[in-house]
Amino acid sequence: MPPKQNFTKVSIAKVRGTSQTLQQDALATEEPLEIRLGFFENGKRIHRPVSITMRTPGDDFALAAGFLFTEGIVKSPEQIERIKFCGLPASENLQNTVRVDLRSDVAVDLKKLERHFYTTSSCGVCGKTSIEALQTGACHLEFKTSPIFSAATIYGLPETLRSGQSVFDCTGGLHAAALFNSNGELKIVREDVGRHNAVDKIIGAQFLNEKFPLAEKLLFVSGRASFELVQKALMAGIPILAAVGAPSSLAVELAEKFGMTLLGFVRDNRFNIYAGAERITI
Amino acid sequence: MPPKQNFTKVSIAKVRGTSQTLQQDALATEEPLEIRLGFFENGKRIHRPVSITMRTPGDDFALAAGFLFTEGIVKSPEQIERIKFCGLPASENLQNTVRVDLRSDVAVDLKKLERHFYTTSSCGVCGKTSIEALQTGACHLEFKTSPIFSAATIYGLPETLRSGQSVFDCTGGLHAAALFNSNGELKIVREDVGRHNAVDKIIGAQFLNEKFPLAEKLLFVSGRASFELVQKALMAGIPILAAVGAPSSLAVELAEKFGMTLLGFVRDNRFNIYAGAERITI
Repeated sequence: MPPKQNFTKVSIAKVRGTSQTLQQDALATEEPLEIRLGFFENGKRIHRPVSITMRTPGDDFALAAGFLFTEGIVKSPEQIERIKFCGLPASENLQNTVRVDLRSDVAVDLKKLERHFYTTSSCGVCGKTSIEALQTGACHLEFKTSPIFSAATIYGLPETLRSGQSVFDCTGGLHAAALFNSNGELKIVREDVGRHNAVDKIIGAQFLNEKFPLAEKLLFVSGRASFELVQKALMAGIPILAAVGAPSSLAVELAEKFGMTLLGFVRDNRFNIYAGAERITI
Repeated sequence: MPPKQNFTKVSIAKVRGTSQTLQQDALATEEPLEIRLGFFENGKRIHRPVSITMRTPGDDFALAAGFLFTEGIVKSPEQIERIKFCGLPASENLQNTVRVDLRSDVAVDLKKLERHFYTTSSCGVCGKTSIEALQTGACHLEFKTSPIFSAATIYGLPETLRSGQSVFDCTGGLHAAALFNSNGELKIVREDVGRHNAVDKIIGAQFLNEKFPLAEKLLFVSGRASFELVQKALMAGIPILAAVGAPSSLAVELAEKFGMTLLGFVRDNRFNIYAGAERITI
């Protein structure tokens, strides 16, 4: 079974001024991914769908692991027995369902699962409640080390990110996320139609390869910094989140509350510090 | 109760080259909105939460109506008895829950509600299945008229949109969506941290003001054109979707299937036609 491609070729008309030319173009592929969780209850293995997201195919196992980790459902790679595709064999979408089977001794907090559904699909939770939930329930929420990044290193992030991107160059339609160390070295980059998926792919890859903690790293994302991205970085213990675009109000509130550094508008040799200025030297 | 503000002021450090200045900055507000549906079952009114989304406060009634319409749950404004905020009075988040009460004679297809949850939170649906569901279940999916837009009109969309935006200017962190007619006149513009919310706010406002059908209009969105935006435009009977960024593969597939026009990279006096070239004159 060949892996799915992360871009799709189409014929388009390019219009410039008063002329148009027909040509081939590449688009970022967008397909749904269902994540199913296999776990033991009263000695019996049961399966349960826990998420569906529109994603760009690729690194789907890392995406599933990163999702389960950032939601607080798994805490270490050893808790995972196996990860596999599990769609219907007759279907061409065989690779659009990933099942993560946990070891028999792993207790799944069903309430946490419920809460996840509750908060994402149908509830009265407010941002403040979510922040309180993070404060009490999560695992990596204290920053014990405090890496220092220089402004010069921050200025260099966009160009280094671009040189590390692959699909973006040909489609222009993807969000990217990358981990950097304080020398400005790019450690890993992932691209996806969904910003949160690119971040889950990165965190999941580090999680599965036992590269935790990420306490010395900076997470750089294209586009805006939303509440959700700050939450994911927090869960992974990443002390600095830097974005090409603007942060939202709730993103700043959450970063401040947990002592995380949040940078926005990182482009054209400038950036803004919204929280945690102590980790940046000018 | 004063309306919530759609921006939030914060103190930030602006870093340029080797200097930084402290100043006040405005951020796009991001807060959760719960949409609850009130309807009659066996003669009794019941309420049920049907969605929660992170949104920028403002036009929340239109957002709720647009969501329910584009999900196929309501078909006409007359089906809605009232829309109101309904959070706990003691809470400062009173305005983060909107309840839409339907008239007693409106039948709600509970399966449709289930399917919504199923497809957005936990299911094995694939894009193709979603496309089939649209094909059989939706109401505005035939384009009976075919407005023609000139390339010159398309080139003018970005500047007209910018001149119509308000919050974006001070925050830089919002997505915008707008309806245009074929003279290039902007009819309505809305901004939100979520692209899909900006579109729901527009469609909901037109729906509540009985400005349907939208068969002569073009929907212009900042950022990328995803599957979800094409689906929403289709449900509202809008024949042309134009985006500042790239479309995804599934967006193009869906537009082609339903004879909709899809334009991408609409900026700097150029654009690409991904589907439905017959509605564009060069």
